[in-house]
Amino acid sequence: MSITRIPIRSGKAFYLNRGEKLKVICPEGEQVSDMFCFDKEDLDNRLSNGKTFDYEESLLLSIGNYLWSNKSDKMLKIVEDSCGIHDFLLAPCDAKTFEIIYKDKQERPSCFNNLYQSLKAYGVEKSQIGTAFNIFMNVNFDWQGRVSVEPPRAVAGDYVIFEAQMDLLVALTACSAEMSNNHSFKPIDYEIISLES
Amino acid sequence: MSITRIPIRSGKAFYLNRGEKLKVICPEGEQVSDMFCFDKEDLDNRLSNGKTFDYEESLLLSIGNYLWSNKSDKMLKIVEDSCGIHDFLLAPCDAKTFEIIYKDKQERPSCFNNLYQSLKAYGVEKSQIGTAFNIFMNVNFDWQGRVSVEPPRAVAGDYVIFEAQMDLLVALTACSAEMSNNHSFKPIDYEIISLES
Repeated sequence: MSITRIPIRSGKAFYLNRGEKLKVICPEGEQVSDMFCFDKEDLDNRLSNGKTFDYEESLLLSIGNYLWSNKSDKMLKIVEDSCGIHDFLLAPCDAKTFEIIYKDKQERPSCFNNLYQSLKAYGVEKSQIGTAFNIFMNVNFDWQGRVSVEPPRAVAGDYVIFEAQMDLLVALTACSAEMSNNHSFKPIDYEIISLES
Repeated sequence: MSITRIPIRSGKAFYLNRGEKLKVICPEGEQVSDMFCFDKEDLDNRLSNGKTFDYEESLLLSIGNYLWSNKSDKMLKIVEDSCGIHDFLLAPCDAKTFEIIYKDKQERPSCFNNLYQSLKAYGVEKSQIGTAFNIFMNVNFDWQGRVSVEPPRAVAGDYVIFEAQMDLLVALTACSAEMSNNHSFKPIDYEIISLES
């Protein structure tokens, strides 16, 4: 399969079959990609940070960890990870996020809307999109629980490979929030590695 | 208003109007209560750990913090808290949790099912119940992100008071997971403090 580019501040959705691998690449460094996914056969079975933290017993997820659904199914396994720093705590940025955190009331792209615009053709409703796995997002937390968003550690060419544990509908973005991407918007690349390749 | 008791390993749902306060009490100590809530007028607007971590910039929530919805609305404010240790990371226990974590395949009460059984009379579907705010749950995490469930710090009589920021549908449980409650199931009490009282 060839590499697909997600232009800056946009998103794409696609099917990923069980056993196929998804490689998500940070082509220019310091760029976050929000990923959300659904059981292809059941849109009420979807990615869950709470279930993942429970079963993986970790807030930080890298090689060997699974991402779980709200119905307690394994959705994806992280099989390669050249970066190692991702986030599963924070919800996708949306119009209100920019208003509340950035005091920016004008219409602008957001990960939530980019996920929704990509997914709606597959029958997904807004209310079905929850907290995404934020690939390359660098969120620090200390022992007092204080959270801060720091520049991504990903350098140009860093990648993560996920292996699908079930037939999935996946959406990815090139994140649109200044703070998450060290104040510069870059594209995200992805490649589906099929069973035959 | 009088105090209502939630018997061990069960749940209750009720409306809480804007401005009313909800006092949740741990009458015997070391007992967790999972709380989930909805905008009374819009069941697609519901409690979100990802949005709360984002806006409160903290994983640990106590006096002065708000609990936010997926649509970026303030739902509840914590106005009193005699315990100070709660969790918003882990999803409610369900039948599969007990199978995966406890290797227990027999039918038994769970917070997820107790939330659902309480909420279904109000039109809530299973897929609308996400990660609850786990009152009195003591979840440790270290700098490497490792998560562990420890005995609750709540002693008999500890309580939290929440102030509703909108008209809400709220569900509470007396949690049914051994590990979360130091291996002994106790009841939970709650009181609605209305504007007139």
